[in-house]
Amino acid sequence: MQLYFSPLACSMATRIAFYEAGVDARFVEVDPKTKRTLEDDADYLAVSPLGYVPALRTDDGEVLTENSAILQHVADALPQAKLAPTDARGRTHLQQWLCFIGTELHKALYTPLLDERAPAEAKTYALEKGRSRLDFLAKHLAHRDHLLDAFSVADAYLVTVLTWSVATPIDLTKWPALLAYVGRVRERPSVARAFAEERDLYVKEKARHAKA
Amino acid sequence: MQLYFSPLACSMATRIAFYEAGVDARFVEVDPKTKRTLEDDADYLAVSPLGYVPALRTDDGEVLTENSAILQHVADALPQAKLAPTDARGRTHLQQWLCFIGTELHKALYTPLLDERAPAEAKTYALEKGRSRLDFLAKHLAHRDHLLDAFSVADAYLVTVLTWSVATPIDLTKWPALLAYVGRVRERPSVARAFAEERDLYVKEKARHAKA
Repeated sequence: MQLYFSPLACSMATRIAFYEAGVDARFVEVDPKTKRTLEDDADYLAVSPLGYVPALRTDDGEVLTENSAILQHVADALPQAKLAPTDARGRTHLQQWLCFIGTELHKALYTPLLDERAPAEAKTYALEKGRSRLDFLAKHLAHRDHLLDAFSVADAYLVTVLTWSVATPIDLTKWPALLAYVGRVRERPSVARAFAEERDLYVKEKARHAKA
Repeated sequence: MQLYFSPLACSMATRIAFYEAGVDARFVEVDPKTKRTLEDDADYLAVSPLGYVPALRTDDGEVLTENSAILQHVADALPQAKLAPTDARGRTHLQQWLCFIGTELHKALYTPLLDERAPAEAKTYALEKGRSRLDFLAKHLAHRDHLLDAFSVADAYLVTVLTWSVATPIDLTKWPALLAYVGRVRERPSVARAFAEERDLYVKEKARHAKA
């Protein structure tokens, strides 16, 4: 499988999944500004027309998009890693969390806060609405280690998103349960490795943009 | 099963699924402003702490939230209606579309446009970013009747969301393929019935709010 990613973007959740499974995947870096791949300067829009990451080229050659679909596909393709419940009820709970993270956190809260082209009013609006979502999440995580009974692709996605807080006005110290969760999950070897590698690539990306 | 809904909200997709299956469900209306149920003036926040619809009480008594999780649960619970592919690849494609509709359309585009408290700048920003998503969708639907090979819960969700356009600056006549799709899908008896019923309830909701 081949993952199209940009450093520290939500595509990192899939990298974490691969590391959890101890599986070799090919990682193709996409510059989020130029929408070109770094390794061969190819047009990423030819792979995924809307230009956002992740996209996953499966072993059949098909290109999948949309984070929660890719994460479930990878979890199912690598069952030994146990990254998703296999019973119907557990799968529904996984889908609940993937949907919540994707819609309420990623899209409604973090995307406007992280987008430099978003107007200040859009950021304020997102932040006001988002607090209740973080409260809700903190309550859920106050007395458990993971979103579900064990680490899953939903945690890989959530830790990626919550870590974006440092680049936003969201101060996670106001939600001690979330801060503790992020600290705990980032200690997993798969997560620590993914963050370390992507942080380096992110610094290089910033340097490239500054030069351009 | 018992569906908590508000008229013409994204919860309508689940009503459509029930009508497709010809199954009796209980529909409990939630006032989106007061967050109370109409039938017995109960506090909806006690059912779903964040207060948004849909929520689904399953036959086991469990409350599920998040539209794409609920839609997949209902499709799986009513297999005779064939509202979701059962093969792995088809299910991944369904999840792609549910995720795209939920994140790129519903949350990133329509939510700010429909929210009267959203500042004008947030609306303009959403609209600019959203056009490429509608272009992409129109291209996909130009030569096919449904998002997948047959009608699915993703269509139930999409037709609900696209119909919100009338209350936004999105002029669907600029995307003839989307306009044709909405017209086509709304002719399905399940969809026509759901819209007719919820439109009536919506008018009553508006009258109630005007009086309050």
